[in-house]
Amino acid sequence: MNTPGSTSRTTVRRLPERSVADLAVAHAILDAAGGRVVAHVAVVEDGQPFVLPVAFARDGDSVIFHGSSGSRLFRTLAAGAPTCLTVTHVDGIVLARSAFESSMNYRCVMVLGTCEALEDEDKAAALQTITEALTPGRWEHLRPMKRKEMAATLVLRLPLDELSVKVRDGGPEDPEEDVSFPVWAGHVPFRIEAGEPQPAADLPADPATLSGGWA
Amino acid sequence: MNTPGSTSRTTVRRLPERSVADLAVAHAILDAAGGRVVAHVAVVEDGQPFVLPVAFARDGDSVIFHGSSGSRLFRTLAAGAPTCLTVTHVDGIVLARSAFESSMNYRCVMVLGTCEALEDEDKAAALQTITEALTPGRWEHLRPMKRKEMAATLVLRLPLDELSVKVRDGGPEDPEEDVSFPVWAGHVPFRIEAGEPQPAADLPADPATLSGGWA
Repeated sequence: MNTPGSTSRTTVRRLPERSVADLAVAHAILDAAGGRVVAHVAVVEDGQPFVLPVAFARDGDSVIFHGSSGSRLFRTLAAGAPTCLTVTHVDGIVLARSAFESSMNYRCVMVLGTCEALEDEDKAAALQTITEALTPGRWEHLRPMKRKEMAATLVLRLPLDELSVKVRDGGPEDPEEDVSFPVWAGHVPFRIEAGEPQPAADLPADPATLSGGWA
Repeated sequence: MNTPGSTSRTTVRRLPERSVADLAVAHAILDAAGGRVVAHVAVVEDGQPFVLPVAFARDGDSVIFHGSSGSRLFRTLAAGAPTCLTVTHVDGIVLARSAFESSMNYRCVMVLGTCEALEDEDKAAALQTITEALTPGRWEHLRPMKRKEMAATLVLRLPLDELSVKVRDGGPEDPEEDVSFPVWAGHVPFRIEAGEPQPAADLPADPATLSGGWA
């Protein structure tokens, strides 16, 4: 079963029961990253792929992310090279009775397409959206972007037009003849925890007077 | 500064102070995944890249991972298509006084090359290595692999010959003129926690008698 945005290129051919027929699920998976999970985006040059980690946000029916305008690979993306952006949450590990049936629990969205480089107001708005996705409520408290910083930043938009979603959760699914095998079976959930905020070494003496902390 | 295994293709051109001149660091980053972090591997078909999440292990000077022999994309990799495998640990988020200086803390290894499909004893040994990396101590307790399961599994080896390493840690590095800006600054560490093991629904009544549980 495929997502509404899927095409023949993104049809989930393996383990189709793990795909989810709901674009809203794709949105939820992307929104759940919140800066704790990065996207991995591909750039191909002369047939050689590169896979780069990027912080990202969903903005409506697109994914947006940024990079340095001095980066050759980001400029290749901005020029419209075909790309793939994948976001994977690793939710746990599945311990079946056999190595073959053992697995991971995960939520994954894979987006195919080409990027558009945003300019002017769109670019500024996208930077705000990304910042708010990673550090909610912080944008308005930050020292505003400078013109030269804007120029040094490429902001790319990849539409969620062609994508696939795969989700696995729950315990192992051993075939019946394996169930009596004398080994523990089950699954172990993983969770990303944020630790105590660590103040910058150059923070003033009374940080309680400062706005925009970690929420 | 680049790693011993780096070449002109993997030279870290951006933010070179974040690269680390030590192949041992690459090994440590790969070894730290332990099933909690997956690799993202690229496959290019007709110029279109696909980025797939895979569980993996380091085996000496290679990364090994597996997939279904029924998967077109995995067969393309097995045939020697140029690939890139990237492993990223997201270690935290860096809150600077400006959006521009804000960042992530991370450890990232990017490996370029082509894969070799393992066969026979090498394949069996690699499956054991991957299983032990994800669930230490469990292999000897598992129901052994069947011949048809081996045939359904592709095991790929990607040598750590050409790679780059990037690491960022610690707090923000705001320019001096930003330090007095009245916003909190610092960093927040992230950590992946394993929760309580969840027994399979079909586990026998007295699971304490079973070996090979989650360590």
